[in-house]
Amino acid sequence: MELGMVGLGRMGANMAERLVKGGHKVSGFDPNADARKAAEANGIAPAASLEALAKALPAPRVLWLMVPAGKITDDTVNTLLPLLAKGDTVIDGGNSNYKDTLRRAQLYAGHGLGYVDCGTSGGVWGLKEGYSMMIGGDAKTVEALRPIFETLAPAKDQGWGRVGPAGSGHYTKMVHNGIEYGMMQAYAEGFSILKHKEEFGLDLHQVGEIWRTGSVVRSWLLDLATDALGKNPNMDGIAPYVVDSGEGRWTVDAALELNVSAPVITLSLMERFRSRDDDSFADKLLSSLRNEFGGHAIKKE
Amino acid sequence: MELGMVGLGRMGANMAERLVKGGHKVSGFDPNADARKAAEANGIAPAASLEALAKALPAPRVLWLMVPAGKITDDTVNTLLPLLAKGDTVIDGGNSNYKDTLRRAQLYAGHGLGYVDCGTSGGVWGLKEGYSMMIGGDAKTVEALRPIFETLAPAKDQGWGRVGPAGSGHYTKMVHNGIEYGMMQAYAEGFSILKHKEEFGLDLHQVGEIWRTGSVVRSWLLDLATDALGKNPNMDGIAPYVVDSGEGRWTVDAALELNVSAPVITLSLMERFRSRDDDSFADKLLSSLRNEFGGHAIKKE
Amino acid sequence: MELGMVGLGRMGANMAERLVKGGHKVSGFDPNADARKAAEANGIAPAASLEALAKALPAPRVLWLMVPAGKITDDTVNTLLPLLAKGDTVIDGGNSNYKDTLRRAQLYAGHGLGYVDCGTSGGVWGLKEGYSMMIGGDAKTVEALRPIFETLAPAKDQGWGRVGPAGSGHYTKMVHNGIEYGMMQAYAEGFSILKHKEEFGLDLHQVGEIWRTGSVVRSWLLDLATDALGKNPNMDGIAPYVVDSGEGRWTVDAALELNVSAPVITLSLMERFRSRDDDSFADKLLSSLRNEFGGHAIKKE
Amino acid sequence: MELGMVGLGRMGANMAERLVKGGHKVSGFDPNADARKAAEANGIAPAASLEALAKALPAPRVLWLMVPAGKITDDTVNTLLPLLAKGDTVIDGGNSNYKDTLRRAQLYAGHGLGYVDCGTSGGVWGLKEGYSMMIGGDAKTVEALRPIFETLAPAKDQGWGRVGPAGSGHYTKMVHNGIEYGMMQAYAEGFSILKHKEEFGLDLHQVGEIWRTGSVVRSWLLDLATDALGKNPNMDGIAPYVVDSGEGRWTVDAALELNVSAPVITLSLMERFRSRDDDSFADKLLSSLRNEFGGHAIKKE
Repeated sequence: MELGMVGLGRMGANMAERLVKGGHKVSGFDPNADARKAAEANGIAPAASLEALAKALPAPRVLWLMVPAGKITDDTVNTLLPLLAKGDTVIDGGNSNYKDTLRRAQLYAGHGLGYVDCGTSGGVWGLKEGYSMMIGGDAKTVEALRPIFETLAPAKDQGWGRVGPAGSGHYTKMVHNGIEYGMMQAYAEGFSILKHKEEFGLDLHQVGEIWRTGSVVRSWLLDLATDALGKNPNMDGIAPYVVDSGEGRWTVDAALELNVSAPVITLSLMERFRSRDDDSFADKLLSSLRNEFGGHAIKKE
Repeated sequence: MELGMVGLGRMGANMAERLVKGGHKVSGFDPNADARKAAEANGIAPAASLEALAKALPAPRVLWLMVPAGKITDDTVNTLLPLLAKGDTVIDGGNSNYKDTLRRAQLYAGHGLGYVDCGTSGGVWGLKEGYSMMIGGDAKTVEALRPIFETLAPAKDQGWGRVGPAGSGHYTKMVHNGIEYGMMQAYAEGFSILKHKEEFGLDLHQVGEIWRTGSVVRSWLLDLATDALGKNPNMDGIAPYVVDSGEGRWTVDAALELNVSAPVITLSLMERFRSRDDDSFADKLLSSLRNEFGGHAIKKE
Repeated sequence: MELGMVGLGRMGANMAERLVKGGHKVSGFDPNADARKAAEANGIAPAASLEALAKALPAPRVLWLMVPAGKITDDTVNTLLPLLAKGDTVIDGGNSNYKDTLRRAQLYAGHGLGYVDCGTSGGVWGLKEGYSMMIGGDAKTVEALRPIFETLAPAKDQGWGRVGPAGSGHYTKMVHNGIEYGMMQAYAEGFSILKHKEEFGLDLHQVGEIWRTGSVVRSWLLDLATDALGKNPNMDGIAPYVVDSGEGRWTVDAALELNVSAPVITLSLMERFRSRDDDSFADKLLSSLRNEFGGHAIKKE
Repeated sequence: MELGMVGLGRMGANMAERLVKGGHKVSGFDPNADARKAAEANGIAPAASLEALAKALPAPRVLWLMVPAGKITDDTVNTLLPLLAKGDTVIDGGNSNYKDTLRRAQLYAGHGLGYVDCGTSGGVWGLKEGYSMMIGGDAKTVEALRPIFETLAPAKDQGWGRVGPAGSGHYTKMVHNGIEYGMMQAYAEGFSILKHKEEFGLDLHQVGEIWRTGSVVRSWLLDLATDALGKNPNMDGIAPYVVDSGEGRWTVDAALELNVSAPVITLSLMERFRSRDDDSFADKLLSSLRNEFGGHAIKKE
């Protein structure tokens, strides 16, 4: 097929490259000239603007957005709207909030345009191993894009599927990330408990290697954690500072809206908040309060 | 009544003083000569050793232990054993683990000695306001000590009681402290959420003052938190480092043994652990793992 | 002063009654005729509609809203808007989300109308004991209402105050409720751990009574819990089903927005969700999963 | 090699069978005659008692224990002690608490006997796929058992290793299970959040299938969860009742002893407690307390 990739950052460039290698014809736009140049070297026809990209594509156009969620996605969706014609389809492959997706899909539907949300997992490994894709949108529209998904996926019939109507792809990806937070935290806590048992002198990289084969906790995240522990067993030079990128908190929001208890996912997120606050007011107040009632000593800063 | 106070630290000295003021005759032992001297100034007859203390008391002897839980309590209990005679009673007013208490009470019962466990709450304020006391032990033995409890309590018939057999007093006090952890953490989180809402410029001391009267969350801990916020609104100079003294984790142990879910008490304890670890291995591994799968930047130390 | 009370349910009727007793002249509207009748018996002049109420009040009008948060508050605010004149003030004393309050205050400000948010705590006990009030809004507008707040509060100068600009009153009350959730859960867990220690045969009502005086965990919520345990020690006939009314989850939302870790408040909310789900899909899947990898028996429904 | 398997239940019988298939000579004891008979059919020489088993093995003897942790392991270890001779080795392949293991290893060392702890993961799938084994004990003793481990493992050099001194194998397996609890809970919460989003009508089995290939959350537990969801999408007939088998709570104990915060592992355990309590006293008290302060309706049983 032929499609236009909007956004040639790490994820977009990799996906475009995988599509080209799979025999698709790909044009690409990115506001950054270097990104366009790098993409061109990988067989992607560069376009200097969204207008140019829209013009370069044959009808019905297919555009894949791989841009940051939020305002930039909104801007792109709005800019593209008048450049497109009935029957064209836009796929949002980024990490958009599914509520934004619902709104955008409705907007596009009102103009006879297809709008598909594709939650994309696989990170930097997707170029080589393929991407896991959870897709939402009109069934017929999604079906028409099958060749694209089959190429991006790890295997023709594996790791992708239309899970439901507009929004459901991003919703499913959101929950995927919530689960990811919980799994990561479980491993981190476990390795920490091993690490602190100093009298056993455990080699965490070795433990990870053992677990990777045959154990109940084997997983791809464990493969990566083991790799990280092999390269840097004591995590030297790495700050205990963990970023979150939005989908974890949306998962918690969703749990709250649905009255679903999700303590592990929620706590995993909050531990990340805690990691970024090395001057916790709550803990200072607690220390102060212990002094108030018990006369306990306060550690000074 | 007449009794011997073993341990004249902050808590023991205050309790002895309150007993003297209440008309009781109190002797006291502490290995620290300064502590004995200070107690003497408050009307407590000092004894230079446990032997001397035992000799100074009329039969049947009553001894109140106010010493650190664990080894020191064990040493004291074992040293006293041969110094006592049938009918004497020892009260452990400290924060002993109730399992240790059960063991000690059994030992003493085997020698015809009374052993009473008294969980004591009230902290440094107890001298003036009285102590809340949860008492375990033989009913008749506890009843014989009534005048002591009536004096130490905030009021003759309030704030104290025999709650059950040996161990039950310390067990009840242990759970009391577990609840205390949960309450403290709830306030700390709440004030932290207020503090971080910078656009409202809230005066946390003022908020505490408002809540203290008429609100659902009014409590003694809130009175103290408000006082702390009045003296040091930004908690300047206080490290975000929160100590725990044992009873919180015993409460969690008890919950685990009984298969009772106690997430709030448990999390309150673990937040204290977290406050004391400013170089979390778990968080470093998480940051490293995010880099592994997503190529996300790692914050360097 | 003279004011109109909108909403004569449990809270509104009680507050109107306390104001009348405090010497204020109060008119009141409620769509329910019985509520109006009951209010009339307490000295409140009934109005059959918002129009009638607005007409009955002298300029500048003061109206106190005590209606359910959300749509009903919006409807009331919108209905009142054309009935009011420059200089009039509406106080929202209910549990509105502070973001709604910000929106409504801006709307009213655009029409030269005062809009004050008053987070009100005290529940059914407020009639007798007074209400704790956290107030947001323009300083001059709030000051003009001082006689009302002084009457509603537990004491003239206690338990109330303007904490900041529009929205800050409801924000502070929201966090108050979050703390309340955490405290309640801490007590519930603690009493549950005591209850399950069957060999001690503890009398939970007695324990509550002891703690109420002199202990570190004394509080008004403990007073009430003790009262409940006295009336129904085994909680006979009460379903383990705990409702939440919105402010807890808004507190969690606020924590998420501010990147503040608030594990105890959050878990307290989620435990309530869990209490209302007696057919947990998550737990069924867990049981099923244990069978998958370990061949462990599944409990059948 | 030649070895004796003690315990021919599900795990022991499978391991013995895998060893026989791998060319080892295996005798086996189980108190249950049917279990012995079934083992015999798989090429295992049955022994009717521990004495008979000890006699049947050539010196130096190697015995693998696959019996329930706790008293039965202690009984077996104690019964075997006088039947063994210097140079013999016992391997505890079960889920013993590492503290018990330390005690038993010391006992055996005092008699010149080898004692090796092998944390074994893989469940019912191990027969076919091999077992992941974390091994603690004297390096030379473990090395001598290499042929056994190479056969039981998924591959000669993968999925097993000596991680440290006596006790460290069981310790590592314990933490492995703690992580397992956290991962399982993360998946369960995620699928529950998907399930409750009814308007999307998601097919959870399909979602699992998509995630299994290429996604960040792919794992063996996800494979199994997906299989379970395929067989029983709505978990019909399965009670929301989740058992725990000891290692989760020992992991929490270890975290408490080491002052390590492990909220996700701990909460995962407590959610299991909660799942087994369909008449929560804590929740009844909460409901009652809401009624006390706010007059909120109580749901009756």
